[in-house]
Amino acid sequence: MAEHDVTFDTDPDPVRVPTGTLLIEAATKAGIMIQQPCGGQGRCGRCVVRVIDGNVRRRSTVRLSPADIEAGYALACQTVIESDALISVPSQEKIERRLTTDLTALEITPPDDYQPDVVQMIRRLNLTLSAPGMEDQTDDWNRVQAALRRQIGIEEVRASLAQFRRIGRVLREGDWQVTLALDAGEYPARLIDIQPGHTPENKPLWGAAVDIGTTTVTVWLCDLLNGEVKAQVAEYNSQIACGEDVISRIIYSSKNSGGEELRERVLKTINDLIATACKRVQAQPDSIMKATVAGNSTMMHLVLGIPAESIRFSPFVTGVNTIPVLTAHDVGLNIHPEGSVDCLPGVASYVGADITAGVLSSGMSETERITLFIDVGTNGEIVLGNNQWLVACACSAGPAFEGGGVRDGMRATRGAIEEVWINGETFEPSFRVIGNVRAQGICGSGLISLLAEMFLTGVVDKSGNINLLLPTERVRKGEHGAEYVIAGADETGHGQDIAITHVDIDNLLRAKAAIYAGFTVLADRVGIPLVSVEQVLVGGSFGKYINVEKAIEIGLLPDIPWENFHFLGNTAIRGAYMALLNGHPRKRVNEIAERMTYIELSADNTFYDAFTSALFLPHTDLLRFPTVQIKGSG
Amino acid sequence: MAEHDVTFDTDPDPVRVPTGTLLIEAATKAGIMIQQPCGGQGRCGRCVVRVIDGNVRRRSTVRLSPADIEAGYALACQTVIESDALISVPSQEKIERRLTTDLTALEITPPDDYQPDVVQMIRRLNLTLSAPGMEDQTDDWNRVQAALRRQIGIEEVRASLAQFRRIGRVLREGDWQVTLALDAGEYPARLIDIQPGHTPENKPLWGAAVDIGTTTVTVWLCDLLNGEVKAQVAEYNSQIACGEDVISRIIYSSKNSGGEELRERVLKTINDLIATACKRVQAQPDSIMKATVAGNSTMMHLVLGIPAESIRFSPFVTGVNTIPVLTAHDVGLNIHPEGSVDCLPGVASYVGADITAGVLSSGMSETERITLFIDVGTNGEIVLGNNQWLVACACSAGPAFEGGGVRDGMRATRGAIEEVWINGETFEPSFRVIGNVRAQGICGSGLISLLAEMFLTGVVDKSGNINLLLPTERVRKGEHGAEYVIAGADETGHGQDIAITHVDIDNLLRAKAAIYAGFTVLADRVGIPLVSVEQVLVGGSFGKYINVEKAIEIGLLPDIPWENFHFLGNTAIRGAYMALLNGHPRKRVNEIAERMTYIELSADNTFYDAFTSALFLPHTDLLRFPTVQIKGSG
Repeated sequence: MAEHDVTFDTDPDPVRVPTGTLLIEAATKAGIMIQQPCGGQGRCGRCVVRVIDGNVRRRSTVRLSPADIEAGYALACQTVIESDALISVPSQEKIERRLTTDLTALEITPPDDYQPDVVQMIRRLNLTLSAPGMEDQTDDWNRVQAALRRQIGIEEVRASLAQFRRIGRVLREGDWQVTLALDAGEYPARLIDIQPGHTPENKPLWGAAVDIGTTTVTVWLCDLLNGEVKAQVAEYNSQIACGEDVISRIIYSSKNSGGEELRERVLKTINDLIATACKRVQAQPDSIMKATVAGNSTMMHLVLGIPAESIRFSPFVTGVNTIPVLTAHDVGLNIHPEGSVDCLPGVASYVGADITAGVLSSGMSETERITLFIDVGTNGEIVLGNNQWLVACACSAGPAFEGGGVRDGMRATRGAIEEVWINGETFEPSFRVIGNVRAQGICGSGLISLLAEMFLTGVVDKSGNINLLLPTERVRKGEHGAEYVIAGADETGHGQDIAITHVDIDNLLRAKAAIYAGFTVLADRVGIPLVSVEQVLVGGSFGKYINVEKAIEIGLLPDIPWENFHFLGNTAIRGAYMALLNGHPRKRVNEIAERMTYIELSADNTFYDAFTSALFLPHTDLLRFPTVQIKGSG
Repeated sequence: MAEHDVTFDTDPDPVRVPTGTLLIEAATKAGIMIQQPCGGQGRCGRCVVRVIDGNVRRRSTVRLSPADIEAGYALACQTVIESDALISVPSQEKIERRLTTDLTALEITPPDDYQPDVVQMIRRLNLTLSAPGMEDQTDDWNRVQAALRRQIGIEEVRASLAQFRRIGRVLREGDWQVTLALDAGEYPARLIDIQPGHTPENKPLWGAAVDIGTTTVTVWLCDLLNGEVKAQVAEYNSQIACGEDVISRIIYSSKNSGGEELRERVLKTINDLIATACKRVQAQPDSIMKATVAGNSTMMHLVLGIPAESIRFSPFVTGVNTIPVLTAHDVGLNIHPEGSVDCLPGVASYVGADITAGVLSSGMSETERITLFIDVGTNGEIVLGNNQWLVACACSAGPAFEGGGVRDGMRATRGAIEEVWINGETFEPSFRVIGNVRAQGICGSGLISLLAEMFLTGVVDKSGNINLLLPTERVRKGEHGAEYVIAGADETGHGQDIAITHVDIDNLLRAKAAIYAGFTVLADRVGIPLVSVEQVLVGGSFGKYINVEKAIEIGLLPDIPWENFHFLGNTAIRGAYMALLNGHPRKRVNEIAERMTYIELSADNTFYDAFTSALFLPHTDLLRFPTVQIKGSG
């Protein structure tokens, strides 16, 4: 068998190992300690290294993005040597930052795997006008229009009354040299701004992509001319004070001036974020000429002040799915008052612009591969399809995966247990906490991981019942029935036990069953078995931190090869960003919304069967989960 | 010679008179006294009678509109009998009302000679929508659009954010039956209003035509469906407090918040008129779905809050001549907030939408006859042309014909001397006062009449110099040089003499010379002698009360046959009304504005010569005024 020299950047001397040796073994041979909390199962991603040179083969790439792989990152426990190689071992601190991004700061990593493709519909034009005289008494506005026709070939432009009030002074102040900003994506083109004098070509032309999440609002501030993202900021949606999920927001909006309050709250969040982003790049908010907005249908209605009540009651109808381009002044956004506000289209009450934008940025509508796109939050939105067809549904998963409806549940912020491992013999848990502090509770990814480990180690049976007979004090009968203690009072930040109860497990099962039943109904509707799905794209910040193996083990995700799962993070903001830069993707979002067939699960008589079948770990039909069946039997 | 029986309705017995007998003679023979203050010269129009039956020939129809003639009206002193006839003699009171409409009430007679031609672009539609259900979760707005496509064939409709906020509630309140108002004149069509339930087809759909004059604002409230004018109201433009003419208004607007004050003032005038008109027909202002607006360019800029400074200074450029359709909310008009406000297009700083609307309603752009259209106010706007070509100019006549710049001048309201006759032997004047009260001053038509009589009786020479040698005390030397006393202190309302001074006459000569020079330059430009003009159409309330014979005598109007003059009254409001009712005339106004060649007199080097030549009574070149030459020599 061939042997290869493997050099680690911490040591000049190579080690010699045979072909097929795991990188982690080579490291050990070189005397380098690489942590592997999951015990080398490729689950936790903490053994990540970077292959600078040489050929390797990755068995699993869970927790690695395509950009990571492109950059040479590999999991040391899942990667084998196939040639001489040079390997970089990141400091543990760097790994921490890669994996446990502190969500309290809510910074988003740049879209490093996206080359901005700019076909900008917002145009900034330097015009030189002829001065009027007794032989040319053309009115000011016609003079501007004539110059546009002559110099740029734009036939028709419309302007607001507010602009007509400014034009005369601007023309004379600039001595007949002016800079215009137009939205040429509308017909006729619309004047956004006119300023005296010419503007240097290299000065940024600002635009903002906005994603209004029920929990988090994200803003990317970009140079519209080259697509560069110059600032990325995010903050909790201040509507949270009026309810955590869309239903409670709608209820709040229906009372007295609740709708107006919610509108003002989310506008304040967005406008504060815009101000922060502008400060960072030393720009003025009113120099932002356009914003694209993504968000679920409820968020879109609330930010625009459109009543959302009908979303809540059968037959679950929105006020408007496709909104024309509005001006910032109308909407209340603190950018240029005449700036374009382009709200991306939604499809139904629970499949909104966040999903159409997500489908756009995921690329699923452009590929022949049968793709399952999921975005799990309070609702799980699911899209199945490819470049030929798209079907979508929404399942009310409930807030369990966001830490809601679970006694010690919390959002994925500092202090949340985000991954759990249970020793199969002692039933003792070990866990990782976001921010490396004492645990305060457990978040969605932690719950998935916990439930999977409990199932695989027999702490719970396939119905989710806790085995009280196990020889460990971790299992006990609590106030709410059987429970399993993850962290004792002496280990936690608040000095109380953190445990999962029978009721919590029930809620988790119902949540995962709702999502899996969604997959099933969609696949059945189009007559395609779930195993034929060629890739699974997971959007949302939730998806960014879950462990696919464990999610399959509990029957939340379908059992297909791990390498076919891709975690895309916030696909909605990326879709909004793509639509901001380029008229073609912008049109494509509309096409996606038009093409997408929405299936109302509450009106589908196969949904309930699919749901009850999925209320087990991983499922009543084990043939659907062959890899879990093997583990269970092995 | 044939004889005919003429019967007057005041007496059953006919009188027998030969063919060619004047009606006034027949009346005298029948013992009926008909007043003829002008001495039977056909000037004053007070001898008007109505021919119920029989053939007559009218020698002059001055003071009679085409509708009057159509209705049988005739001047008794200018009409000869050609068959048996039945004649109605109106009571003197009725004649007074016909001729001396009390302008303080500012009521306008209905457009009795215009058959409304309605091709309405504002559409009111009763829609019945299918209710949503689990099988049809179409969003509310799309549901409305689909019904429009299906029931009406309207492909695309846009709505404002304010409408999106209402639609959901309206649909449900109306139990899926709604009434829409659309502006189908815009593309795409625009939703103006949506209300729950259906609306009876015969309920009026309100629209308003608005003419913003520098002095007077006029509003006609109409039923858009059948074109009926239901209320006509007018009031002084409350901007008058800030200046009497456009130049002083512009100056006022340039100071501090003067522009904003002027905007608020004229909006208040318009909105008060709308409220008054609505009250009269028991309608709500917000049930008015559209307003068309005519007005000169300065008025249009001021009402829209567009700076007007550049109108005042060379090269006299407007901010915008062609304004897109705005919403009432943007403009500040108290009709439906989303109602269309359609400002008609102007051509230049001093040829505004009042003139394009005037040309439209005058019909001159549709006829082959070479037509001179004039609208005399502070400025005299003149248009020459036909259906092939149109040239226009504006001459700053000054306010003399509105009673300004004349010592005892006043506007044509109660107490103004509106017609004067001078006895050729005694040089004693007699006059008619508006409202039959004691005289307070003299208005434009009175001044024209006075100047003509003074010239014909030799009180002034052709240069306008008063002959102080005349054997009458009416002629005297006053503080400001020579003057002629029209009314002594004992005859007037304020107890002081009313006289015309040498300075007044100079101002009048300059005013009339400016206008006549305007005709000359326009005619020269197109190479047409003024005598080839086939009709003269006089617009404006000024034109409604002037005596054409006297206006020719002083050289204000060209010397062509009286029957070729037509006094149209307020042509601007009528043009706005036509454009309100029908999309075709609305387009024609744009065509008129585009076709019209504007000639800037201050840049025309023939204007000054034409002006100085016209500074005489009637003109240096008497060949231009053959009928006046005859009178002078006779």
